[in-house]
Amino acid sequence: MNDAKVQVIKMIEANKNEIVKTVQELIKYPSVMGEEKEAQIYFSDLLRKLSLNVDVWEPTMEDMKINPDFLAARDHFEGSPNVVGVLKGKGGGKSILLNGHMDVVPDGDNDWDDSPWSGKLAAGKIYGRGASDMKGGIIANVMAVKAIMDSGIQLKGDVIIESVIGEETGGAGTLSAISRGYKADGAIVPEPTDMQLCPVSMGVTWFRIIVKGLAAHAATSYLGVNAIIKASMILQKINEFEAKIIKEKKHELYKHHPAPFSINIGIIKGGIFPTSVPDEVIIEGRMSFTPDEEISEARRGFEAAVYEAAEKDDWLKEHRPIIEWFGFCLNSGSVDKEHPLVKTMADNYKSIKGNEPDIVGTPWGTDAGALIRYGNTPTVVFGPGPGGTAHKANEHVDVDKLVETTKIIACTILDWCGYER
Amino acid sequence: MNDAKVQVIKMIEANKNEIVKTVQELIKYPSVMGEEKEAQIYFSDLLRKLSLNVDVWEPTMEDMKINPDFLAARDHFEGSPNVVGVLKGKGGGKSILLNGHMDVVPDGDNDWDDSPWSGKLAAGKIYGRGASDMKGGIIANVMAVKAIMDSGIQLKGDVIIESVIGEETGGAGTLSAISRGYKADGAIVPEPTDMQLCPVSMGVTWFRIIVKGLAAHAATSYLGVNAIIKASMILQKINEFEAKIIKEKKHELYKHHPAPFSINIGIIKGGIFPTSVPDEVIIEGRMSFTPDEEISEARRGFEAAVYEAAEKDDWLKEHRPIIEWFGFCLNSGSVDKEHPLVKTMADNYKSIKGNEPDIVGTPWGTDAGALIRYGNTPTVVFGPGPGGTAHKANEHVDVDKLVETTKIIACTILDWCGYER
Repeated sequence: MNDAKVQVIKMIEANKNEIVKTVQELIKYPSVMGEEKEAQIYFSDLLRKLSLNVDVWEPTMEDMKINPDFLAARDHFEGSPNVVGVLKGKGGGKSILLNGHMDVVPDGDNDWDDSPWSGKLAAGKIYGRGASDMKGGIIANVMAVKAIMDSGIQLKGDVIIESVIGEETGGAGTLSAISRGYKADGAIVPEPTDMQLCPVSMGVTWFRIIVKGLAAHAATSYLGVNAIIKASMILQKINEFEAKIIKEKKHELYKHHPAPFSINIGIIKGGIFPTSVPDEVIIEGRMSFTPDEEISEARRGFEAAVYEAAEKDDWLKEHRPIIEWFGFCLNSGSVDKEHPLVKTMADNYKSIKGNEPDIVGTPWGTDAGALIRYGNTPTVVFGPGPGGTAHKANEHVDVDKLVETTKIIACTILDWCGYER
Repeated sequence: MNDAKVQVIKMIEANKNEIVKTVQELIKYPSVMGEEKEAQIYFSDLLRKLSLNVDVWEPTMEDMKINPDFLAARDHFEGSPNVVGVLKGKGGGKSILLNGHMDVVPDGDNDWDDSPWSGKLAAGKIYGRGASDMKGGIIANVMAVKAIMDSGIQLKGDVIIESVIGEETGGAGTLSAISRGYKADGAIVPEPTDMQLCPVSMGVTWFRIIVKGLAAHAATSYLGVNAIIKASMILQKINEFEAKIIKEKKHELYKHHPAPFSINIGIIKGGIFPTSVPDEVIIEGRMSFTPDEEISEARRGFEAAVYEAAEKDDWLKEHRPIIEWFGFCLNSGSVDKEHPLVKTMADNYKSIKGNEPDIVGTPWGTDAGALIRYGNTPTVVFGPGPGGTAHKANEHVDVDKLVETTKIIACTILDWCGYER
């Protein structure tokens, strides 16, 4: 390990309390969809204290056009700014983009032991909504750059630090940043991979199926068509189709996962009264697909399965289920596992941790898909948080992993961007 | 037709406007579950004006014990009185009980052309919630007795006029009246049969099925068990089982009906989020069964089918669906179609209408089941309203049929109870 890295790592060790405190403070802002602004102001102040060139703007729907499959839960982004800080390099090095999302999912159930917005430190873990997904990661990005600057090291390549909105609802913030021109020779997204290196992100797209029936009183049910019974036929087919894709869709970086590319039926709702024949059922769910697949291809496969089931039923043949792709969609993205960025990160991981990293695919969609596909920026997802606690009660991030991740990101920046002392 | 009948029929003709006006006024009381009191006071005043012995009381849960399968949507009946009026006969004749329910279903959808509580008269029809089911019928009962009394005819047998609560939610009012001792040699229930004579009532019982799964995040759906997919297996089995009972369960008085004894899946609800594996699905519906079947027998058949489907699935075998019989249950009841009461009514129908009546079974449960089974009172369901508009928007009763029904009931009372002039 060279002197620069030794010095930066020492700086990060020295800054450990500041890292923890900053994550704790950031968790206190409940930055759920539409409420990101205060947290983003806090974040932009961090970047300004580092004397970065700070850009704060609200995404527009126009920005989303680079992704023809974009879907979001909202129709405007007023009050939900993106924040980007740029550290210009001296020149002659590769640029790096450190992306993270400030939005968090709602606090959800009541199973929290403490307030979801406490930022409480206990037994070496910081607790709260976003601790793992991904305020820990976003602060690791900042603190890695700060340690380099505090060490008096000048980078050759540019560093772009992004705090975006809207990742949890379809990736609007990152799309907007790409449209605004923020691209680089490489990017890191510290989503909660539990320190696994992820050069590929799967695709995820939500669906809604509307199955129509014909209303009637139960006493003369033969005059109606039961939408719930018809929906059960479609569900059986989707279950078969899922078994098929679990068997057939394989990817080298998902060997460890028993069923990475799958279909989840999440919600069903139909009918209003026990004595009425229901005339509509709505089914909602999530389909994931491989990093190699085009989203349109994945969707076509699903649609074909549903329509095939419909063809076998006299009513459904004439009243085809309506399939809507709604609410959430993150496209897949893939970087070769031999890519220099992956190698650099793996080397630094080994130096810091002492062992080889797991190199796998993410079990969810991430903004890496957009960075790779629409930003032409090779991206690796690698963060400190445990994925298992994200979106759940008692979400947390381990302080040791938070600090180790900060070190690995800092050393990767040094190698990737080049530097002068 | 004898002189007494001719006189009574003339009296009913003369009272036609009063019959219409009384039905209109009664519709104006929105006597949905829990709100029957004002309508019952109005009704008890009608009976008092006829100088009947009037009995007004609130049913108790104790009264329900005569029906071990009783289920209701409420746990007390305070503020929901029954009303009974008794006209004592001179003696030496058979008694008759004229039963009707004052409770109506909610106004429901917004498709009404006028207020559901308007009682509007238009093109020979009276409109409003309850017009058909069964305020028209309940007033036909009263006006038949009134015409006899107004004609100065003295009956030999007793007449009991009942306005009960709770029929739409499981028959509490009639059970309470039976427990209080109101029974007779015969009974008429003018539910909306569109003037078909119904000596048999099918049984109806609601069910709830709870299918359990195991929650997980969709990204690791293999760790969970999808309750919606499991529910679809149960639904497919119920669909098969329904086809079997439609084919196998037959009854002489339901030959006209393509599928009288059936299973309606009315409601399904499960899951909370597209990205979560749902851990529970709730299904609710209605099963009807033949007048010859015991309710326990019908339920056992259904339960066996559901459990049989569960046995074929490793998860469901260990986590059997929970079946609840909830909310609503009206037992079946049957009177021989050659019974003297049926004959008497059919003869009077022919005299008034000029043709033979249809003699069929009801397509729903009625309080006749309780009167027959627990009151030992042979009961025929016969009323003026069209069943097709009950529980729907623009419910109505035809004035001509209302008057004809009043005549047929009056003439039946004369024949059944015997009389002196």
